[in-house]
Amino acid sequence: MKIDLNSDMGEGFGRWRIADDDGLMDVISSANIACGFHAGDYAIMNRTVQRAKTKGVGIGAHPGLPDLMGFGRRSMSISDADMEAMMVYQIGALQAVAALHGHRVTHVSYHAAFGNMANADANLALRLARAIAALDRELTVFCMPGQLTERAAETAGLRVQTLFLADRAYTSLGTLVPRDQPGAVIHDLAAIRARVRQFLEDGSVTTSVGSRLQVKAQSILVHSDTPGSLELAKAIRSEIEAVGAVLTPAFRLHD
Amino acid sequence: MKIDLNSDMGEGFGRWRIADDDGLMDVISSANIACGFHAGDYAIMNRTVQRAKTKGVGIGAHPGLPDLMGFGRRSMSISDADMEAMMVYQIGALQAVAALHGHRVTHVSYHAAFGNMANADANLALRLARAIAALDRELTVFCMPGQLTERAAETAGLRVQTLFLADRAYTSLGTLVPRDQPGAVIHDLAAIRARVRQFLEDGSVTTSVGSRLQVKAQSILVHSDTPGSLELAKAIRSEIEAVGAVLTPAFRLHD
Amino acid sequence: MKIDLNSDMGEGFGRWRIADDDGLMDVISSANIACGFHAGDYAIMNRTVQRAKTKGVGIGAHPGLPDLMGFGRRSMSISDADMEAMMVYQIGALQAVAALHGHRVTHVSYHAAFGNMANADANLALRLARAIAALDRELTVFCMPGQLTERAAETAGLRVQTLFLADRAYTSLGTLVPRDQPGAVIHDLAAIRARVRQFLEDGSVTTSVGSRLQVKAQSILVHSDTPGSLELAKAIRSEIEAVGAVLTPAFRLHD
Amino acid sequence: MKIDLNSDMGEGFGRWRIADDDGLMDVISSANIACGFHAGDYAIMNRTVQRAKTKGVGIGAHPGLPDLMGFGRRSMSISDADMEAMMVYQIGALQAVAALHGHRVTHVSYHAAFGNMANADANLALRLARAIAALDRELTVFCMPGQLTERAAETAGLRVQTLFLADRAYTSLGTLVPRDQPGAVIHDLAAIRARVRQFLEDGSVTTSVGSRLQVKAQSILVHSDTPGSLELAKAIRSEIEAVGAVLTPAFRLHD
Repeated sequence: MKIDLNSDMGEGFGRWRIADDDGLMDVISSANIACGFHAGDYAIMNRTVQRAKTKGVGIGAHPGLPDLMGFGRRSMSISDADMEAMMVYQIGALQAVAALHGHRVTHVSYHAAFGNMANADANLALRLARAIAALDRELTVFCMPGQLTERAAETAGLRVQTLFLADRAYTSLGTLVPRDQPGAVIHDLAAIRARVRQFLEDGSVTTSVGSRLQVKAQSILVHSDTPGSLELAKAIRSEIEAVGAVLTPAFRLHD
Repeated sequence: MKIDLNSDMGEGFGRWRIADDDGLMDVISSANIACGFHAGDYAIMNRTVQRAKTKGVGIGAHPGLPDLMGFGRRSMSISDADMEAMMVYQIGALQAVAALHGHRVTHVSYHAAFGNMANADANLALRLARAIAALDRELTVFCMPGQLTERAAETAGLRVQTLFLADRAYTSLGTLVPRDQPGAVIHDLAAIRARVRQFLEDGSVTTSVGSRLQVKAQSILVHSDTPGSLELAKAIRSEIEAVGAVLTPAFRLHD
Repeated sequence: MKIDLNSDMGEGFGRWRIADDDGLMDVISSANIACGFHAGDYAIMNRTVQRAKTKGVGIGAHPGLPDLMGFGRRSMSISDADMEAMMVYQIGALQAVAALHGHRVTHVSYHAAFGNMANADANLALRLARAIAALDRELTVFCMPGQLTERAAETAGLRVQTLFLADRAYTSLGTLVPRDQPGAVIHDLAAIRARVRQFLEDGSVTTSVGSRLQVKAQSILVHSDTPGSLELAKAIRSEIEAVGAVLTPAFRLHD
Repeated sequence: MKIDLNSDMGEGFGRWRIADDDGLMDVISSANIACGFHAGDYAIMNRTVQRAKTKGVGIGAHPGLPDLMGFGRRSMSISDADMEAMMVYQIGALQAVAALHGHRVTHVSYHAAFGNMANADANLALRLARAIAALDRELTVFCMPGQLTERAAETAGLRVQTLFLADRAYTSLGTLVPRDQPGAVIHDLAAIRARVRQFLEDGSVTTSVGSRLQVKAQSILVHSDTPGSLELAKAIRSEIEAVGAVLTPAFRLHD
């Protein structure tokens, strides 16, 4: 069994850092790299891509809204045409940085409010997916199972990689329990390990109401800005290795 | 005879504009498009590329320093590695916007202080040229004849397109008379037309001291932010047509 | 009779300009100066304040959302605390620039989406008004008659100056006809002159449905980014002078 | 004896942080607050001022170059007029945030490249000092003993507070050993404590060549972005208390 472990990376700016990116790069198989709009800058992107290349980590663009101060989490009223252009701009910037280092962008993972906007509007989701396809038909789109962006990517003829979040509670509908609700984020490492084990063994997760739910996913996402993200990633990786699964960058899952 | 007429384009930001880009796009054959650092934004880039595609105008990246307020004209102390990364970022962003519209970036033209830094440092010039080659070996680099960036581009195996500036005085050495000296910029349209004619007829320019100098160039540059740039461009184009030369995008000059 | 004629000023950025500010400064009596968030920068603010001082024009802060690209017109989800802090930051910056030139900020006029947010939320409107009062109890708040920001300013003990827009159609309720509806903006200079005359004569405006409405206002606003804003301002001023009213900066209207 | 202990504060941006500001605020007596150009934003400034007010910590503006990505450390070619306007803008912004919380800006401390430019040009230093005096004659300027900015502040009639850096090596001329030289930064806490003790006892420092040098200073600066800055500040404070000196905000040193 092949499993991808991915994380948002390069989400600092200038002198500022938000996670132990160097540490995480030794643990994950795919990196979703910030492209300068919600976080990241050309220098950080450059170093992140270089390190990913060295470590054999697959890279994806992590486009966000143009809002460094709000970390791309504040919604803004932006036209579909501008959403498309800003995403294309960001992906292209990363593609070129990748080319400089002999690496290649193989996936796209929407960030925060950018992703929320795409998942709330089927037209926008499809427009973005088609723009991605226009850049590179081989690009894989990351999303949560059942999201609008999943269907849009499929319609546009793109591959989709759905995600499992080991430290987030799931509702019985398969959506994440919103962050502002109690128990939404699971902090106990033993509990997280158990959830990963269960997911790897039978592809299921125990929901917040105790039911068992099948999660269609072959990739596990760790948010790098979660406190203790490196330990979280290491714990997940050790569970992956314990069941004999092979850590595999997302773009190679279906080779 | 084939001649390219090019101009810096898309050098507004948000609501702000600096030139009659739509008008110029009907007159020129190549557009050097600002990429969001000294000017330009994803929305303007998007519209500019779209229009260039429609009009059959060749497009190039016009990378600049990250300084919207200073329009990329203020020198900054930036490392060679950061210069390389910021240029690659900008070119890539434009390449992707071009791909979205079925167009293709075919040249690179350094902007203002960015270009000055490259032309003052052979190592930097070569590093930038090699980075351009890593992105796309077919890219043509625009420069003034004799500049460090010309040699660097040739060393990196790139094509070079040297420029003639019809509204700028030349020294007897072939360099431009600095802007802060009297007579550096020629405003009289009849004089400019005469200079274009002379350049087209025998490839020469009359220098500020009255001597005749050969200018190795097949492309004429109009700065779009010069007041009256549209009239200037139209006058130059009518001279080109008057001598029976064929207006040709830079990347097709050597087809 | 005293009448103020005011306009948004300093709404360029770096090299970019949006209006003939120098021309307008000769015509108006109060300037609402952009403070660097939706437009304007320290250099433009500096020149604008200096010129206003020379011309005897009253100055006010024109705070906006932090969105240069969107010109402060895109709504963003921002907390009340952040709205307060960003407004205070902008007003303070202008107060200091004014102090440098021996001038003084005497009013505040909210810009675009910033103002819309304040006018849609009584709590926010009051919080902002109280923050203004904490900075300077003498500051006058500009607003449209009947807006939430008017009541909030009064509650906070601040003076209010309500505005008349000569080139905008009014509904029978006294609100402006939204820009996206036909006839919302009046372009005919003769019609605008007639409206100014009527307003000056009996304080009324003829609404879009033909009724006559009293407008409680002693200040006329010209948006500087309206094409032809300088001619518009001159026409309004000549009407003011024709009826023998005295052009008076807003902060002196009640001396 | 009264001694001030100050630190640069609020040098994060958006979600990013660079130091344990909350911890430091319990230890220092004066805070040099970033004003949004090299670091800091209105929300961080707001919280920092509020906390300083609560803790009885004096506040100063810490103006920097407009370069978030370079943290205000990259030199830029900027005119004296623009330097003045950008400094005034930043100080004013902080003054207003202070007014909102019933606090008051009582000093100015130049940041990094901004300070280097002022210390390299007597005309600029004087222009800046006079601008500070135009804002508030009571403001104290922080500087290193002997710097151009010290003389300029005195010429402008401002109070000056000179600084001692406990973790930096001094040359026999009283300047700091440049950071790129070995031994420039002292990391050993015991050695730093000994230096503080010596400074407090007889106002001297042992230079890098072993000589004893008198340091005219009544304020000790801790750079908050030094790793372990909180421990450093605590160690210095305990030495201050051990000799019976009274920790005093800079603006009260001469009461």
